[in-house]
Amino acid sequence: MTIAVVGVGLMGGSFARDLRKASPTNKIIGCDTSEAHAATALALGLVDEMVALDAAIARADVLLLSVPVDVITTLLPRILDQVNAHQTVIDLGSTKGSIVASVNHHPHRDRFVAAHPMAGTEDSGPEAAVEGLFKDKTVLLCDLDWSAPDACRVALEIFHAVGMKFEFMSATQHDRHAAYVSHLSHVVAYALSLAVQSEEKAGYAVPRLAGGGFASTVRLAKSSPTMWVPIFQQNREAVINSIEVFSARLTEFKRCLEEGDWSTLEHLIREANAIRELL
Amino acid sequence: MTIAVVGVGLMGGSFARDLRKASPTNKIIGCDTSEAHAATALALGLVDEMVALDAAIARADVLLLSVPVDVITTLLPRILDQVNAHQTVIDLGSTKGSIVASVNHHPHRDRFVAAHPMAGTEDSGPEAAVEGLFKDKTVLLCDLDWSAPDACRVALEIFHAVGMKFEFMSATQHDRHAAYVSHLSHVVAYALSLAVQSEEKAGYAVPRLAGGGFASTVRLAKSSPTMWVPIFQQNREAVINSIEVFSARLTEFKRCLEEGDWSTLEHLIREANAIRELL
Repeated sequence: MTIAVVGVGLMGGSFARDLRKASPTNKIIGCDTSEAHAATALALGLVDEMVALDAAIARADVLLLSVPVDVITTLLPRILDQVNAHQTVIDLGSTKGSIVASVNHHPHRDRFVAAHPMAGTEDSGPEAAVEGLFKDKTVLLCDLDWSAPDACRVALEIFHAVGMKFEFMSATQHDRHAAYVSHLSHVVAYALSLAVQSEEKAGYAVPRLAGGGFASTVRLAKSSPTMWVPIFQQNREAVINSIEVFSARLTEFKRCLEEGDWSTLEHLIREANAIRELL
Repeated sequence: MTIAVVGVGLMGGSFARDLRKASPTNKIIGCDTSEAHAATALALGLVDEMVALDAAIARADVLLLSVPVDVITTLLPRILDQVNAHQTVIDLGSTKGSIVASVNHHPHRDRFVAAHPMAGTEDSGPEAAVEGLFKDKTVLLCDLDWSAPDACRVALEIFHAVGMKFEFMSATQHDRHAAYVSHLSHVVAYALSLAVQSEEKAGYAVPRLAGGGFASTVRLAKSSPTMWVPIFQQNREAVINSIEVFSARLTEFKRCLEEGDWSTLEHLIREANAIRELL
């Protein structure tokens, strides 16, 4: 099987690594608008060759779109224009509503499978690609009733090959979930980073003193704006809603501190502790 | 040297492990008001024996206070009442202002060294004790000019033995720093957990879908209220201030989403990304 990885960064590069390992006979071709990324992907042996997008569309059995979500909504209709009834196009974007909407009425809509692998790191670029990134993680597959059965099967095989579990839902449900379990975590980490750096600028050597707890909480604040501004654009309403829910809980917490309401504070902390059982 | 670990939970138990490993001739005695913790600490071999607090005070060269900060402010004056000029008392609490104030005018104040090892996990109890928890982490040592030089030397030796780096500051500076690099991270993680669980109760299977990013950001929300309510009580003002700084940055972020101000959003994310260089 020839698999084209469109965007050989953290996600695409990690898929390339694992897919090759899972089936050494797979031919992995890459596309990237960044010449530096293309050279690194080749040098690291992530892909067999780098080709132009049109050549990838012509040759690949499967195209994996691992580019920022605004690039997906631009490229996807153009790619579907060119695919035949035996090819499968799978996106790996962190939003789903705008992406499925971009090809809603496309005559080849059924060759497309909308997917969001819930895995990643705060790093980016082909040098950030790691083996086993997807193992035991969940991939959310959306609106599968719009995809051809054989395209769905190919997508399931690919995600199974890298060790993923499946969940199925609508693109709308996905975007609401993703706001809470992924996008809000990024907003919170960005705001924490900004708050701590404000303090640092006021003359305190904050980061020098930080332990593992701060590092863990703020980790996602290292994530690139190239990926994340388009995600926030496309999932704007659900993310605003999640920030409001978060702010309301934060305000409750602050009120307890201001009023010395320690019994409610203890209750809130016990309620928060329950995440231990849910994760 | 006989070292008494007062409170054989995560912190005390981890110190006991590492101190024994560093110097097998050290005698480690433990105290704990929880019989279950005492039995576990013995069964795990964290300590040579468990004794009553008064016996520990009578026998130990060094006492390490690894109990919640409200228990430290209660016990510390009573322990200093009983120590002689050759004994050293070191606390490991996450606040410093209230703790040093509790013995401000004590005649044996100079036998006490105020310390905050910036290390830990979200778990608690002796079964959570891990080897190497403190290696390459920083311990903040506060108001050392109030401690006798030989007591300081003993404290430095102990923290050096478990592989820690040192920073020196006043208790007041400490509490302001700790609000940002530790306490605020806990507040944010608790609020994130509460927000996501609100959504879960509204019928969404949020935690089942979560990837590593959410797990990392929310990790500290598993931390126990027994430890954390007293920390928030003792560092109330600095924590309230840090929440306000955080909320202001979060509001900026939300305003960008509401107004579609993507260039400012990108600028904020780039600013937040700079935490990568600071950690």
